[in-house]
Amino acid sequence: MDVSHGPVVPTAHAVSALRPLPRDAVSLRPESLLGGWQARNVAATLPHCVDQLDAYGNLANLRRVTGDDGSFRGFWFADSDVYKTLEAAFWAGSADGFVADAAALLEKAQDEDGYLDSYYQVDNRDKQWSELHFSHEMYCAGHLFQAAVAAARSAAGDPAAQQVLQVARRFADLLVRRFAASPDVDGHPEVETALVELYRVTGHRPYLDLAAHFVENRGHGVLGEGRFGPRYFQDHAAVKAAEEVTGHVVRQVYLLAGAVDVAVETGDLELLAAAERLWDSALASRTYITGGQGSRHRDEAYGDPYELPPDRAYAESCAAIGSFQWAWRLLLATGRPGYADEMERLLYNGIAGSTGVDGVSFFYSNPLQLRTGHDGSHEDAPSQRLSWYSCACCPPNLARLMASLDSYAATGDPAGLQLHLYTAGTFRAGGHTVEVQTRYPWDETITVTITEVGPGPWTLSLRVPAWCGDARLTVNGEPVVAEAGYVRLTRTWLVGDRVELILVMLPRLMAAHPRVDAVRGAAAVVRGPIVHCLEHADAPAGVPFEDLELDSSAPLQVSRDPDGLAPVQLRIPLRARPTDTPHLYRPLPAPARVTPPVIVSAIPYFLWANREPGPMRVFIPLSER
Amino acid sequence: MDVSHGPVVPTAHAVSALRPLPRDAVSLRPESLLGGWQARNVAATLPHCVDQLDAYGNLANLRRVTGDDGSFRGFWFADSDVYKTLEAAFWAGSADGFVADAAALLEKAQDEDGYLDSYYQVDNRDKQWSELHFSHEMYCAGHLFQAAVAAARSAAGDPAAQQVLQVARRFADLLVRRFAASPDVDGHPEVETALVELYRVTGHRPYLDLAAHFVENRGHGVLGEGRFGPRYFQDHAAVKAAEEVTGHVVRQVYLLAGAVDVAVETGDLELLAAAERLWDSALASRTYITGGQGSRHRDEAYGDPYELPPDRAYAESCAAIGSFQWAWRLLLATGRPGYADEMERLLYNGIAGSTGVDGVSFFYSNPLQLRTGHDGSHEDAPSQRLSWYSCACCPPNLARLMASLDSYAATGDPAGLQLHLYTAGTFRAGGHTVEVQTRYPWDETITVTITEVGPGPWTLSLRVPAWCGDARLTVNGEPVVAEAGYVRLTRTWLVGDRVELILVMLPRLMAAHPRVDAVRGAAAVVRGPIVHCLEHADAPAGVPFEDLELDSSAPLQVSRDPDGLAPVQLRIPLRARPTDTPHLYRPLPAPARVTPPVIVSAIPYFLWANREPGPMRVFIPLSER
Repeated sequence: MDVSHGPVVPTAHAVSALRPLPRDAVSLRPESLLGGWQARNVAATLPHCVDQLDAYGNLANLRRVTGDDGSFRGFWFADSDVYKTLEAAFWAGSADGFVADAAALLEKAQDEDGYLDSYYQVDNRDKQWSELHFSHEMYCAGHLFQAAVAAARSAAGDPAAQQVLQVARRFADLLVRRFAASPDVDGHPEVETALVELYRVTGHRPYLDLAAHFVENRGHGVLGEGRFGPRYFQDHAAVKAAEEVTGHVVRQVYLLAGAVDVAVETGDLELLAAAERLWDSALASRTYITGGQGSRHRDEAYGDPYELPPDRAYAESCAAIGSFQWAWRLLLATGRPGYADEMERLLYNGIAGSTGVDGVSFFYSNPLQLRTGHDGSHEDAPSQRLSWYSCACCPPNLARLMASLDSYAATGDPAGLQLHLYTAGTFRAGGHTVEVQTRYPWDETITVTITEVGPGPWTLSLRVPAWCGDARLTVNGEPVVAEAGYVRLTRTWLVGDRVELILVMLPRLMAAHPRVDAVRGAAAVVRGPIVHCLEHADAPAGVPFEDLELDSSAPLQVSRDPDGLAPVQLRIPLRARPTDTPHLYRPLPAPARVTPPVIVSAIPYFLWANREPGPMRVFIPLSER
Repeated sequence: MDVSHGPVVPTAHAVSALRPLPRDAVSLRPESLLGGWQARNVAATLPHCVDQLDAYGNLANLRRVTGDDGSFRGFWFADSDVYKTLEAAFWAGSADGFVADAAALLEKAQDEDGYLDSYYQVDNRDKQWSELHFSHEMYCAGHLFQAAVAAARSAAGDPAAQQVLQVARRFADLLVRRFAASPDVDGHPEVETALVELYRVTGHRPYLDLAAHFVENRGHGVLGEGRFGPRYFQDHAAVKAAEEVTGHVVRQVYLLAGAVDVAVETGDLELLAAAERLWDSALASRTYITGGQGSRHRDEAYGDPYELPPDRAYAESCAAIGSFQWAWRLLLATGRPGYADEMERLLYNGIAGSTGVDGVSFFYSNPLQLRTGHDGSHEDAPSQRLSWYSCACCPPNLARLMASLDSYAATGDPAGLQLHLYTAGTFRAGGHTVEVQTRYPWDETITVTITEVGPGPWTLSLRVPAWCGDARLTVNGEPVVAEAGYVRLTRTWLVGDRVELILVMLPRLMAAHPRVDAVRGAAAVVRGPIVHCLEHADAPAGVPFEDLELDSSAPLQVSRDPDGLAPVQLRIPLRARPTDTPHLYRPLPAPARVTPPVIVSAIPYFLWANREPGPMRVFIPLSER
């Protein structure tokens, strides 16, 4: 059994270009951005989630199975929030009281045959396994398995960890007995990746086989029409045959994460190729500049190609997390740098923006524009982050990701170390230890110092992001060519050797593909991996927010404010659009007069909505050039 | 009791600037566009609706109340489709067999106390009146009352008409007993306008008082949160206090139509002013160029101000019909020409587009753009009109509007005649008869000939639409000044007098207000009242539809094809956008090279999707100028 690893540890015989590092081989500095997020998660988000599980009845639902009174509360898949929080607690190595209580409760609540689902065990026994298209029974099981995997990898000797693993295995064994020869699948994918991970920590092959079986079974119309048709749950085409991502985004990305897990463990290269092809389809026409995916509120779904409205962006937090998990699996399998680029974009934009600086407020949908006069009264599209949601899938999902964040920064093996996400910290592989010093993504410079060496030549690989057109690399002061992708430095290293990588971050104006109608004639302001936004609090007074335009002919400047909300901001030139007819439709106007610009700040998108509520936009209309 | 009138006949003491004409004072020529639609409705749409009521179980649901077996089918408000079809049949004076059967069935199904709702009468007796926020019990009652009003005004002597009126009155009397002193309202407005209309045909004041009571009660949070919050059913603010339209569009426009009816009959000028204010708010920032309203699929709702995506336009057919009904009431109350302008825009675009040329296929949502690669598999956003919908509110709603279309073209009284919608036909008021000859909206010229005169001076009023900047009017060849609004010609007329109005229709490029982000940098092609669109079948081959741009510097030309799908089309200059990087996001590009234009046809929007399915757009991106 592998120990002290984070999420996704391919077995020795898996198709795997890269190998994750054991967690004790990585240490992020708490003053780094990533290390700070991880610390905030332990200090604020995780305890908040634990409290909410009590407040919203998730734990009480499970206690009803053991005999307690009361009504079932929340959505029928409310157990999954318990499991996600438990997983987060195991990765974080904290919240011991909650962990012990929850582990004992799960063991007590579990049926003798291994079944566990508090919605079905008390009021809906007769419907058990009978409404798989929306029951989420295996979705919940999957999250239980992932908690167990975290338990096994993080706290294998702990009694509560053992208890959770046993509960998970009993349920997994039931699934094997019940579904190994069945054509059925769950309406919400998630158990696929979880079963493979459970196989990885137990070595029990039937779990892998069942995951492969579920991936194979999907796409043959077994789930029926449902409310939104078979595409909603990706039951319209087999994974290997599908040509583009579609339907409910979280379902799609969870399914494809599981498909990669199955592919690498079974050596199914056709399945791996399908996952890569579908990834390309998502990135080519259905991804926001923040990395978010999902253009439709109605069915939480991808839209048509190039349908990417900023105001009605759904870009669910869970979808960003799922996309990150899918990218991580593809990165490990293939070693291709584009997957790490996307993990970076997601992390600093789509994912980071979903949590407030307080660590206890969250967005479920992550719009790229909020208008003056927005009706933020409904939790479907609030004006501010909320402390919890009636469907609370996102907050504990964020907690489990942040709790394991250190696992994703680097990979390595005896022959070398690959740095994917730049952050201050220490990394060890193959007997070598390196110290990374940087204030990335605020600063351009990353310094890697060798502090310990092992025997013989060893390769240090550094990712040069595709956004960077000007990367400058030196080894002990000697320039080395650095192009986008991975720069591989192989040599016999000496303690004190020093590698310096400068990823020049010129602020840039980014336009969308002209087929993206929704942001035509507008541009986003980007620096390094960070997408910025214009928020009301920084906008000039006296001009309606929606009448502000960006002067693309004037330069953008970087501004620093170490103690401010954003340590680095961009200063952008805005013009007020000249007043004209108030008519909603009018003859095509003549080019407008040019008014003098004012210079204001654009803050990182992920920091929006941390001041009083008000309008915001990522894509800013361009004034006449 | 008034007879031979169409929808909305204010009583003699009502606040009413204009008076509807009796239907026998109007005759539309069947070869005119409006007359043709009315004829198609009788020949195709109405029989189709009658057939579908059988096929989809709406009539069987009512027969269950009288003892038949079987399960309830369709949505819980399926009775309303029967009532709307019945109303259409009365206005049309056709489908006698269906009318007689339905009338008898309703009488048999009605409870002794007057209650009638097939969903609640059989399986859900215990829930009767207990879930008003979504039960639609009074919504259904309202449609029954409107059928009864049509019966009374169109076929007062007919036994089936008398039967329907009696059933309606029994139900209305029950509502008066049950709700006159209750704070409750129905989650879906509709009964308000219906009760006022029933008061108008019966003279029974308690119906009017109950309608006023319902309008007054709304907005005080009596409906609870529901799924989308109180704004969804306009229960967040009293009508008189509301500052902007919001929530579910059909609910909002039906409520405000009812509010106008109540206001004019009770003399409540504050309520009338509120309805006008809310109208202005809708037109200023929440209406598509087709007249459609509703920007969100999720809750079939208005969005934020200026949130008007063309691709995800919901613009429900019923919302356009409701907006038309609201406009008609405001026109009668105030005589202001803007309401007639909007009726015209709705009729020739938002409403006309919802029915196929075959008369038996319908859109529920009416998008202004359909992309290449659109997933049209779900009835929420199909690529083509469908013959029916699981929620079939729209088709019979279209049938009842089209069946009474002749009622809306003109108003009049002994002192004169007001022509609002130009169409070939005959109109009579105050002893004068006029013959209108025109091929409007295809042609610019409207000729009005006096064919019969009454005593003394008499006023002929002609609407000059706001879209027309060049209206040329002559009376017997003598020029008369004609500005936007109503031109009033008062004189002692002679038989043979001839008025000619030319509404010059220069094709024009229309842009949206720059706050409408979704169509920035794009323009719509409009001629007269007709919004055009570019449809795949007319687009140049070999260029992806989404890469076509409009050259706004080149002229637009009118093209005629009397036997084609569209008798008049516009010829527009398109350019193919130069190919560039496929990346979804890219640095702001330099101005593109100019390529030679090709000239293609743009057809009236209302005629789209009558050829093979494929992409379409109203707003076309502009090439660099």
